[in-house]
Amino acid sequence: MTFETNPVGRSLLDLSTPLPVIDEDRMAANIARVQDYLTAHGLAFRPHIKTHKIPALAEAQVAAGARGINCQKISEAEVFADAGFQDILITFNILGAEKLAALSTLNDRISDLKVVADSRVTVAGLAAYFSGRKPLAVLVECDTGGGRCGVQTPAEATALARAIIGHEGLTFAGLMTYPKAQTEAAVEHFFASAIADLEKDGIPCPIRSNGGTPSLFSAHLVPSATEHRAGTYIYNDRSMVRAGHCTLEDCAMHVLATVVSRPTPDRAILDAGSKALTSDLLGFSDYGLIIDYPEAVITGLSEEHANVDLSKITGPRPEIGDKVRIVPNHTCVISNLFDSMTFHRDGIVTRVEPVTARGLVW
Amino acid sequence: MTFETNPVGRSLLDLSTPLPVIDEDRMAANIARVQDYLTAHGLAFRPHIKTHKIPALAEAQVAAGARGINCQKISEAEVFADAGFQDILITFNILGAEKLAALSTLNDRISDLKVVADSRVTVAGLAAYFSGRKPLAVLVECDTGGGRCGVQTPAEATALARAIIGHEGLTFAGLMTYPKAQTEAAVEHFFASAIADLEKDGIPCPIRSNGGTPSLFSAHLVPSATEHRAGTYIYNDRSMVRAGHCTLEDCAMHVLATVVSRPTPDRAILDAGSKALTSDLLGFSDYGLIIDYPEAVITGLSEEHANVDLSKITGPRPEIGDKVRIVPNHTCVISNLFDSMTFHRDGIVTRVEPVTARGLVW
Repeated sequence: MTFETNPVGRSLLDLSTPLPVIDEDRMAANIARVQDYLTAHGLAFRPHIKTHKIPALAEAQVAAGARGINCQKISEAEVFADAGFQDILITFNILGAEKLAALSTLNDRISDLKVVADSRVTVAGLAAYFSGRKPLAVLVECDTGGGRCGVQTPAEATALARAIIGHEGLTFAGLMTYPKAQTEAAVEHFFASAIADLEKDGIPCPIRSNGGTPSLFSAHLVPSATEHRAGTYIYNDRSMVRAGHCTLEDCAMHVLATVVSRPTPDRAILDAGSKALTSDLLGFSDYGLIIDYPEAVITGLSEEHANVDLSKITGPRPEIGDKVRIVPNHTCVISNLFDSMTFHRDGIVTRVEPVTARGLVW
Repeated sequence: MTFETNPVGRSLLDLSTPLPVIDEDRMAANIARVQDYLTAHGLAFRPHIKTHKIPALAEAQVAAGARGINCQKISEAEVFADAGFQDILITFNILGAEKLAALSTLNDRISDLKVVADSRVTVAGLAAYFSGRKPLAVLVECDTGGGRCGVQTPAEATALARAIIGHEGLTFAGLMTYPKAQTEAAVEHFFASAIADLEKDGIPCPIRSNGGTPSLFSAHLVPSATEHRAGTYIYNDRSMVRAGHCTLEDCAMHVLATVVSRPTPDRAILDAGSKALTSDLLGFSDYGLIIDYPEAVITGLSEEHANVDLSKITGPRPEIGDKVRIVPNHTCVISNLFDSMTFHRDGIVTRVEPVTARGLVW
């Protein structure tokens, strides 16, 4: 089909829209900056591949110094195992016969698979399936204030760790949390309390895995942690600028769009809708920042259209046919919408990578 | 990979989640009900394939009596042309050399391609490219209050129609609108005014294309229309129940999910996040209706998790491992997330169809 033309070497200005594109140099700088910070503070880094879903990018992250990767689904981990990755942490409660069978197959294939669990139901399911098989490493997921999954107290965490140790098909590998931003003291208190309790029984807790991009540069304030997980930092987005993690110039992903209609003086319609930008607001009241027209407001999306309010623009307004660059609210969800991602350096396409782990069901 | 196991003949209860599924009988009833209504009122029906993106379903819609289909992108139209469809309306302003070339190639392949335009810039681009080629049929898009694309007045519509007629590469095919729900009088006034003005010059306006599912059963209140376009009606969703178009029992799409965590008495976590349900709120304050627990509230989504508030549930609460069925806020965006769609009758899988037109860029 016509839209499969190879764009390498072409100018972004000549490409059809809507199209998410990644600035190679900004991405490389994001990888280096985070890795250097974590290395300087003695923390291992485990990038979360949910943001890019592209094995070649995870290879660049590992080449920069990352130890292992983080996946959110078995199917994602299978894609990265196919690409040669051996140290994979799946940060999800795995339940059900079909998924347990797939998990065991994966555990047999790679040297260092790990999952998390936050309940005796999940642990019992893992224990029943892995009994008599190659043992599975399990971390206890802790809710340190993030309000999603996780045991609620250090006492619950250590009780679950002891339950894991009691099953011959499982090994206890440590603690994991996905915290709220700027709650390093709470994470440290939770981890340190649980570690101290386990030490009383001589139970080692080798991995203490903290995570998140928004306050990543405060990761050193959790001395009990041994590693940090983060995904969004590789591309960055508008929500990371707001969180203070980066500047607008550190955002490696732009979504390119074209003005396709100017029905009224104050209204522009772009060809990037929720199928290109997603409906993720993440606390914003609009759907992305048009960096060429920062006073413009993307007030609404349908699948293939963005409605833009131009009334606050004091200078020239975009005209039909003009291309604009949008910094999206949230990069990770955009990667999941596209079968391939286009990379560029100084506006010239360098490569197109298949987004191999997008759209996977499990 | 393990997750590609053929599920035909299996019970939905045995399938791994998250998974959107379609009830064959409800879908067939939705197709028949809308077709029967429009046929009874002498309106042609042009289903919008954006909702399902599956040629086999469009074939069922045409078999029931639909005349032609509606696409939103050239790439979608190419997929349906490959599947044998000849009468395709693309309701989008097509701009740019690459897309114009693809549009012309498509126009040469099928007998009855039509596009819309709402500006002299779009018309000039079409006219320049199609000069000397097989003429392209163009409808004028009219903003009858929907507030997206479209000329603002009947006078602008007829002026643009006359501009189209002035170009030898283009033919004027009629008027098109995507209206706000429950504004049939405004659509009728706009269409009738434009038609009367064109009639003064003896200009025929063969197609008057109205659209939308929410107030579809009021389509007969626009006697100037010759056809109606609608997409969502085939699956239906929570927003269509709220709009009064259908009942909850008419919703053919459910998203199946599993409770993977119960961190607190009032909190459940499902394995369906924004990658399964999307973040589309469409005016709701929560992310879908759990039909097995209607008092539960999906308060937030991350990519792979849904946070559910159970505090309002008076009876038994869902436990870890339980499966639930969710009626999503918006079906169309969910089709775009999955490479295939699973169909069932009475809970037994009947077929799995590739979502051939998902994830297309142009």
